[in-house]
Amino acid sequence: MKRTSPIHIDWKPDRKNSKPVYQQIIQFVCDKVASGEWPIGTRLPSQRKMAELFGINRSTVTTAIDELASYGIIVGCHGAGTQIASNTWSLLLSPAPDWSRFISSGFFQENNNTIQAINRLEFVPNIMRLGTGELDPRLFPSDMWQNILQKVSRQVTSLGYLEPLGLLELRKAISAYMEKLGIIAPPSCILITSGALQALQLISVCLLQSGSTVFTEAPTYLKSLQVFQSAGMKLSGVPMDKEGMQYWKLASALKADRLQGSSILYTIPTNQNPTGITMPDSRRKDLMNFCVENRLPIIEDGAYHELCYDGQPPIPLKAIDKTGTVIYLGSASKTLAPGLRIGWIIAPEPIVQRLGDVKMQMDYGASSISQWIFAEFLESGLYSKYLSDLKCELRRRRDHALAVLDKYYQELAEWNIPIGGFYIWLTFKDNVQMERLFEKAAKAGILLNPGDMYDFERNNSLRLSYAYTSCEEFENGIVKLAQIIKEIM
Amino acid sequence: MKRTSPIHIDWKPDRKNSKPVYQQIIQFVCDKVASGEWPIGTRLPSQRKMAELFGINRSTVTTAIDELASYGIIVGCHGAGTQIASNTWSLLLSPAPDWSRFISSGFFQENNNTIQAINRLEFVPNIMRLGTGELDPRLFPSDMWQNILQKVSRQVTSLGYLEPLGLLELRKAISAYMEKLGIIAPPSCILITSGALQALQLISVCLLQSGSTVFTEAPTYLKSLQVFQSAGMKLSGVPMDKEGMQYWKLASALKADRLQGSSILYTIPTNQNPTGITMPDSRRKDLMNFCVENRLPIIEDGAYHELCYDGQPPIPLKAIDKTGTVIYLGSASKTLAPGLRIGWIIAPEPIVQRLGDVKMQMDYGASSISQWIFAEFLESGLYSKYLSDLKCELRRRRDHALAVLDKYYQELAEWNIPIGGFYIWLTFKDNVQMERLFEKAAKAGILLNPGDMYDFERNNSLRLSYAYTSCEEFENGIVKLAQIIKEIM
Repeated sequence: MKRTSPIHIDWKPDRKNSKPVYQQIIQFVCDKVASGEWPIGTRLPSQRKMAELFGINRSTVTTAIDELASYGIIVGCHGAGTQIASNTWSLLLSPAPDWSRFISSGFFQENNNTIQAINRLEFVPNIMRLGTGELDPRLFPSDMWQNILQKVSRQVTSLGYLEPLGLLELRKAISAYMEKLGIIAPPSCILITSGALQALQLISVCLLQSGSTVFTEAPTYLKSLQVFQSAGMKLSGVPMDKEGMQYWKLASALKADRLQGSSILYTIPTNQNPTGITMPDSRRKDLMNFCVENRLPIIEDGAYHELCYDGQPPIPLKAIDKTGTVIYLGSASKTLAPGLRIGWIIAPEPIVQRLGDVKMQMDYGASSISQWIFAEFLESGLYSKYLSDLKCELRRRRDHALAVLDKYYQELAEWNIPIGGFYIWLTFKDNVQMERLFEKAAKAGILLNPGDMYDFERNNSLRLSYAYTSCEEFENGIVKLAQIIKEIM
Repeated sequence: MKRTSPIHIDWKPDRKNSKPVYQQIIQFVCDKVASGEWPIGTRLPSQRKMAELFGINRSTVTTAIDELASYGIIVGCHGAGTQIASNTWSLLLSPAPDWSRFISSGFFQENNNTIQAINRLEFVPNIMRLGTGELDPRLFPSDMWQNILQKVSRQVTSLGYLEPLGLLELRKAISAYMEKLGIIAPPSCILITSGALQALQLISVCLLQSGSTVFTEAPTYLKSLQVFQSAGMKLSGVPMDKEGMQYWKLASALKADRLQGSSILYTIPTNQNPTGITMPDSRRKDLMNFCVENRLPIIEDGAYHELCYDGQPPIPLKAIDKTGTVIYLGSASKTLAPGLRIGWIIAPEPIVQRLGDVKMQMDYGASSISQWIFAEFLESGLYSKYLSDLKCELRRRRDHALAVLDKYYQELAEWNIPIGGFYIWLTFKDNVQMERLFEKAAKAGILLNPGDMYDFERNNSLRLSYAYTSCEEFENGIVKLAQIIKEIM
């Protein structure tokens, strides 16, 4: 049985209160237990951790914990920390279900600790996010937004359930928009999802079998998700060079794998997350041929495809797919607003129909209002206009970020030059204790995305992002970080 | 290997075109195949079905199919209909992945045929929906909506990813709103979901083990979903009387089941879907005691709780839960607008944290704009105002629906009198061939929800809904339906 995580506590004792702090803690725990918010089996953080959270001495925590234990409300379990043992003063009269038994079952794996920490730290006010995969909220096109919302508020007179594939108006608009990128797909080959993550979720539960293999770049954004692993698939990393995935290296693995079941290839060929690498057209064609020959279906994640700002963008794999080998994933999350939760799948019709059927079982479709809004963004032409401004700004930030790194990190690290997207992949020349760096940086108000999160083995890298911070903020953060690195080295 | 469903075709030949119809069909199929939209393994509908879809003679379809088969593009498989066999003229040079192999793997079950048919028929223009679980779009509060959207368009200046539990403003507003229903829950015990269906989805994949049992009313809305079954759980129906679930009947099953793993009870105690039955307070208290004694956790689906229009609404189970036994599900889908895709879970903190963590893995949270909109509805008080108008209108429609049934169905059927919600559960006195009734009604432009969809055994009932149609439409539909019933009896 998997161990459950300790509860996350937001509360702090009130030092101005006349009641002693340890009694406040006892009261706090008793209230949580009495209300049913913390049922039997709830794990408390360690005493050290609680002292830190509450900003008090550990001995005060110990006093409170000892008293709670003497009431029978909590028990210490070897190897499992302190747990809630009783939900009322009379344990035996009114037993509650042991939720910890339920929580630890189910097939979804927990996010790893670094990722859980990042998910939480992102909401700490004023933390400097140097690796976040999200656009700066200040780049949000507020004027266009107001304009579109007012239009939509007049157009949309009700919000019922939508067709299984999603709003037809939006699918038409995406079809027209994709044509500009070279992808010909009628609305019947398009499924709207709640972001591209849900698209992966759908693929993992509908198309793949437990035990099948997902081949993907190493490092890859996928590794930071649990989506395929939770469904029992294994990820297999394919090494990259400056032109992206060295697909030919998977030939032998593929042969072995064919025997086991259905394998599939996942790639972000353009402005890859986390490395920023873009695969040139020539390798795309070769990869495509390789996959067709080996009957290896491709998931092409195009989340950053529209964000190329150096020269002509490369051609999507889907645009050169004549055999229905490629499933293309698009998203408004990286280009416009993750909060819209709008993504789309382009795939052969039977796939789209099957995924749409399952989507109806999972959540009855994405938010209609989000779909209307994005359709209006596309149809009005405002989206294209906005994107061209956005690309200018991102190019400016990238150039500045590279200049800052040149100035301060020449001796410390190496990095690549992305032609678009958000990311610079920074690799330290000397060994850096990444956990310590993450913790010390967090304490100094800097949130990092360690490269390990994305890799199949330990590495010595960071994913930097210049999309979330202004040029000035990025420079300040990078300078502060250099000091921390020197301290721990 | 599970058989895949035939592709759904929307196209029709153009009779005004000078090209013969059978050649148009050949061209249509070849285009779909050449573009990769219909990969190898795609199943075509039967010839009879295609003739019907295209509105032509079956012999014309046969001519086209024979020619396509002679090209090697399609093959007939015994027992599996006609399939696409080749994706180019030269089958062996460029093989595509066999998607049908992928589609039939994965652990999500397909929706059954009636449900798939209903999902599609709901989008046929002007079809009369006599059983739909959806509010009449004409009851949508357009003025409030415009008002709120304009306010939100000014307030919301960016749409980033949200906290794992959902927008804090919305959780606070729901917390305050729930208090009015008797449920005390701080924002830390509330998780925002993409509708209540996703809440069930999360519970099924996080809290329950494959093989565990979900006890629930018979009949139940759950039976029309695949959510628990797809995750390997079994549903066990508990008989109902006029006061709802006869929970004492599950005592023996429960004993047997404890050995196997974690079982759970799912109930819609108020205005149950599909029967419209509401459990009185006295039975609620008894059920609660029974579940606490047996350590049987409860999922209380409150989707229709706010829609009681006869007398005082009963007390939610969650409001009398002192041990953290109940997970409460709320939703804006039945009261305001399903297209918002906003639901919420109220549960003990460790549950909410775990479900929130997994939600982040599935789709990174519900649409932010939907969350802002619903928060504003609640905070402004407009939601409560709207609800009280809505309840008046639903009461009026219910009273009229009952009068219509009294007038035309006295000899045909029996039914209950709901105190709220959308539904009347109609049971025919004589045996009715439900499939035939469904098909004949659909041809006459009436969409029915047969009671079988919701039950554990065949029944002789219909779920009627007076929420979607006006009084006049309901009466017309019911009269027309009575004629069809008499014809087939």
